[in-house]
Amino acid sequence: MRMLLTRATLATMTGDVPYGLIPDGALALANGRIEWVGPAKAIPEVYRGGPVHDLGGRLVTPGLIDCHTHLVFAGNRAREFEMRLTGASYAELARAGGGIMSTVAATRAASMDDLLADALPRLDAMIAEGVTVVEVKSGYGLDRETELRMLRAARALSDLREIRTVTSYLGAHAVPAEYQGRADVYLDEVCLPVLEAAAAEGLVDAVDGFCEGIAFDSGQMARVFDRAQALGLPVKLHAEQLSHQGGAALAARYGALSADHLEYATEADARVMAAAGTVAVLLPGAFYTLRETQTPPVEMFRDHGVPMALATDANPGSSPMVSLLLAMNMGCTLFRLTPEEALAGVTRNAARALGIADMGVLAPDMRADLAVWNVENPGELAYRIGVNRLHRRIVGGNL
Amino acid sequence: MRMLLTRATLATMTGDVPYGLIPDGALALANGRIEWVGPAKAIPEVYRGGPVHDLGGRLVTPGLIDCHTHLVFAGNRAREFEMRLTGASYAELARAGGGIMSTVAATRAASMDDLLADALPRLDAMIAEGVTVVEVKSGYGLDRETELRMLRAARALSDLREIRTVTSYLGAHAVPAEYQGRADVYLDEVCLPVLEAAAAEGLVDAVDGFCEGIAFDSGQMARVFDRAQALGLPVKLHAEQLSHQGGAALAARYGALSADHLEYATEADARVMAAAGTVAVLLPGAFYTLRETQTPPVEMFRDHGVPMALATDANPGSSPMVSLLLAMNMGCTLFRLTPEEALAGVTRNAARALGIADMGVLAPDMRADLAVWNVENPGELAYRIGVNRLHRRIVGGNL
Ligand SMILES: [Zn+2]
Ligand SMILES: [Zn+2]
Repeated sequence: MRMLLTRATLATMTGDVPYGLIPDGALALANGRIEWVGPAKAIPEVYRGGPVHDLGGRLVTPGLIDCHTHLVFAGNRAREFEMRLTGASYAELARAGGGIMSTVAATRAASMDDLLADALPRLDAMIAEGVTVVEVKSGYGLDRETELRMLRAARALSDLREIRTVTSYLGAHAVPAEYQGRADVYLDEVCLPVLEAAAAEGLVDAVDGFCEGIAFDSGQMARVFDRAQALGLPVKLHAEQLSHQGGAALAARYGALSADHLEYATEADARVMAAAGTVAVLLPGAFYTLRETQTPPVEMFRDHGVPMALATDANPGSSPMVSLLLAMNMGCTLFRLTPEEALAGVTRNAARALGIADMGVLAPDMRADLAVWNVENPGELAYRIGVNRLHRRIVGGNL
Repeated sequence: MRMLLTRATLATMTGDVPYGLIPDGALALANGRIEWVGPAKAIPEVYRGGPVHDLGGRLVTPGLIDCHTHLVFAGNRAREFEMRLTGASYAELARAGGGIMSTVAATRAASMDDLLADALPRLDAMIAEGVTVVEVKSGYGLDRETELRMLRAARALSDLREIRTVTSYLGAHAVPAEYQGRADVYLDEVCLPVLEAAAAEGLVDAVDGFCEGIAFDSGQMARVFDRAQALGLPVKLHAEQLSHQGGAALAARYGALSADHLEYATEADARVMAAAGTVAVLLPGAFYTLRETQTPPVEMFRDHGVPMALATDANPGSSPMVSLLLAMNMGCTLFRLTPEEALAGVTRNAARALGIADMGVLAPDMRADLAVWNVENPGELAYRIGVNRLHRRIVGGNL
């Protein structure tokens, strides 16, 4: 069925003008796809007389895409947050079981239903801000059953809500306590076999890892990526967040969809990422929470033509944030992205960071996933802080 | 009519234990007030058999109080935000009419209905986060009619929504273009006479000003405060935000309810504020947006016993933010408040910053303005970023 959306300000995010803006625009939807986009005065004859929906002059963007989240987990780390701020020592925090291992313990103990019940309020908050696609990582199980359960939960979320979930297998997130000091044994005995099992079950859209002094080195990550390649799965990587470890270059060498965080990336990294088409996914929520001072080299990425995306990094430790609009504001305020780059970072470039070819811009043949906003110009989306001006989402053309 | 609220975790914000916490608590409400608070096992006989409302174990806090906002204004400054980030020069920004004067122009051009229509979405966002009292300043008129219209709009908001508004007259916010270089003449011809008129109309709960190199000096602010005292009105002041100007000491000398911002306050300021009972209102949203690096001296305030409050500073320029929960997170993350100090800053100490004696804590005779949360412990309120776990508000005991 066809539907014509009229009286819209369209931020198509494609073409030569800023935001791909079409001030008095219209969109024709058919079979869940965009069939035609253009100025109102050029609406083709075929749509005249058919069903019309008047958007009252509102702004329409592609549905937002949160391309880096750890949305599925159990427990929270409020106690740890409070202990840090009341001056607890490192030893006291460790005794209280803080850090990622407390989330691993809670997640291992959680049933599928528990995980879904915990994730749904976070997912609903994203939906309320116009998100139509969310990436969800495993990585708080670090054992076979829990990693698989997390990925199944991520898939199940898209049955419970009108949203598309994209999964990343993050078995290489941390070395669990039972393998402490034996990272390679963990890879052999758990991470790689579970990747095989998860892939066989169709649970893996991409393979991710955490390349950092406190997690896995680039040689270990190469082993994981080799297995991903053998399985025909694309890769991505948490890289250069706290120090320079060679993760960005590794990611580029494997043609990664994205390298994420990147505070310590270099010009050489930017060059190889640009050549490989690897998206730089910037995560200002973690930068803010960890009170980092070194910002990712945005100007360098810009100069070398590295596409930049923005995401929430929603997780219970370093970024207990689910607002992609706030990530846009932080991207501008903290990282000096322009508001247009911020919007491209949660639409066009976020789609690219997930390997999705038919979303993220308003153009013919794209999926009809849209966000409609009570604002006059697209720069307002990044300007406001903690303000949600969403009028409605349109998912798969459903009005 | 009496009502007993049971199965609540009470953060009373009074008493000796952290958060004044009563884990398995109950509250009795009568005639819009709290009549009794305590542990469930000590519920007095008189409430047995009467009407009961089961809160299902949820957390109850005093209704939140946003004690520093510029909620009423017209227009937005998204264009200026975008121009700055795309590298516009100061001259280009000035030609485009940026800065506070663009908000003054838009606000002067706005009718009462325009102002209300503009403010209501912001107010609704606050209400959705459990706010039951909001302070609203004038100061974007800087002429007689607009200043009065802003204050009338602030009062009218409390007829349109179930929220209490408290007004501050901020005629001394900036020197308008027509008085440029003649600040004292502006005070004589506009600011002081309009204060008299507004007070006569009952529109002024407190008198505020902006003591800064770019606005009014402490001698000029003293003139405004003298007039406030003559009218029997309490004062407060935007002080020491961008430089040390002696505003905090001036505020203390006049027994001000609060001094606000305070990034550049000194130990001497903390000492006189403590002695005067002047609340330090911290505004991390402006600190974040302006990318300031000097934080207010929180430890010094703590050591000297200066009560600290937190607010959004909601305004279209330096803090386009309406989320008090986010201000709490920023207060902890950026200013190193504890989560308990953050909650006291939007309840007990915020009430004090507004001169409200019967709100901000859960205790007998206090107004029955409550916020009920889907969280287990009060530290979670500041821990999450851009996440709203409000279950419901209860205003004036109305269920
Ligand atoms: Zn991550
Ligand atoms: Zn202010």
